[in-house]
Amino acid sequence: MARIGVLGGMGPLATVDFMDKLVKLTPASRDQEHIPVIVANLPHVHDCSDAILGNGKNPLPQLLEGIELLNNVAAGVVVIPCNSAHHWFEALCQASKAPVLHIAKVAVEAIISDGVSKVAIFATEGALACGIYQRELESKEIPYLLPEAQRGQLAINDCIREIKAGNFERGGHYLSMACKEAADHGASTLILGNNELPIAAQYADVQGLTLLDSTLELARASVEYALIRGWNRLGWDS
Amino acid sequence: MARIGVLGGMGPLATVDFMDKLVKLTPASRDQEHIPVIVANLPHVHDCSDAILGNGKNPLPQLLEGIELLNNVAAGVVVIPCNSAHHWFEALCQASKAPVLHIAKVAVEAIISDGVSKVAIFATEGALACGIYQRELESKEIPYLLPEAQRGQLAINDCIREIKAGNFERGGHYLSMACKEAADHGASTLILGNNELPIAAQYADVQGLTLLDSTLELARASVEYALIRGWNRLGWDS
Repeated sequence: MARIGVLGGMGPLATVDFMDKLVKLTPASRDQEHIPVIVANLPHVHDCSDAILGNGKNPLPQLLEGIELLNNVAAGVVVIPCNSAHHWFEALCQASKAPVLHIAKVAVEAIISDGVSKVAIFATEGALACGIYQRELESKEIPYLLPEAQRGQLAINDCIREIKAGNFERGGHYLSMACKEAADHGASTLILGNNELPIAAQYADVQGLTLLDSTLELARASVEYALIRGWNRLGWDS
Repeated sequence: MARIGVLGGMGPLATVDFMDKLVKLTPASRDQEHIPVIVANLPHVHDCSDAILGNGKNPLPQLLEGIELLNNVAAGVVVIPCNSAHHWFEALCQASKAPVLHIAKVAVEAIISDGVSKVAIFATEGALACGIYQRELESKEIPYLLPEAQRGQLAINDCIREIKAGNFERGGHYLSMACKEAADHGASTLILGNNELPIAAQYADVQGLTLLDSTLELARASVEYALIRGWNRLGWDS
């Protein structure tokens, strides 16, 4: 059970970014000191945001297949580098023998709330509609703002679509637009609450904003979970 | 069975590099047009090169566990982004219901042999000892050279070790040294026949040399295998 199970592919490049961060966050000088990970990269899962908004098929049966697969290969914990999929978090937890980490919880936990004036939530419209970040921020009494529906949010939607299509510069351009709006509205911190956005951020102008990368925080929480349990030391004596 | 199975973790970052290349080589404008992939990232596998040289434990039982896992999750083809593991290729093929692609075969297939004067093989000492690249090049009558045992090969060994430890600049430095020696000996093309080397190449001076990246070629062959079979179109009508 000493393996991280990753339910990925939503999108595939976001999963690669998650894996890259997970490997680089692991303190290791050779292969055998790393953490075993099984990745189910299942990109055919129906678009989670569309489904939340009532515009697409329900991805839950496909997500449950992924959960079953990861449990069958002895995952000791499951993580999902797709924020929007967390709309179905309770159902996925119920179906999983292995605990599932919640990306919004671990991301918001990482905010150092002292001195944070206002946090902007950047996410899909579906993730915003199901309120996964709003709930966490409210429970910590951190003030937040959302992008304007007809301006910043449209730029974020375009950004996500461009990154999924492999158009990195264009994705960065749209993220820069959304960042400028957030800064103009007094945001000091941005939650990148969608897993294409950290990729776009490498191509965007994010000056003056503190970025909270939900992919990075999920990777950090995953590594911590595994290291505490010694999953990186499997190969030392065997 | 419409999934690529990746036996990875040797090393973990090389597997991330492979996944990144696989995703970027797939022609897709949205998640649902990508290829399903299951990655078994099993970094505790004993060092393959050491074992080939008689200096370490036999990794074959662990590699077979990975093959079994990937077959159990319905992989339709298995790929291994670790050159040295191909020493056990026959045994892995015999144990796998799904076909296994051979990294050295697909890499050497990609050499355009017209006008290639001499190809230098950069690999672990174990991979060189088992001759996976030499055999392929000989069968195509492509002349090759190996790094000097006490100079270029030591630099390659150091390069691989540094990349596995996350020291990218130092890895690049050692690869540059090995490249200079190969160029001085008349090599025009380098086979990066180890999967840490393409990562190091981003930090190295490889001027004037044509690089043949075995990770990239394995990713290309994997994508082709899947696209021919329509594995990227699973989600379109479902």
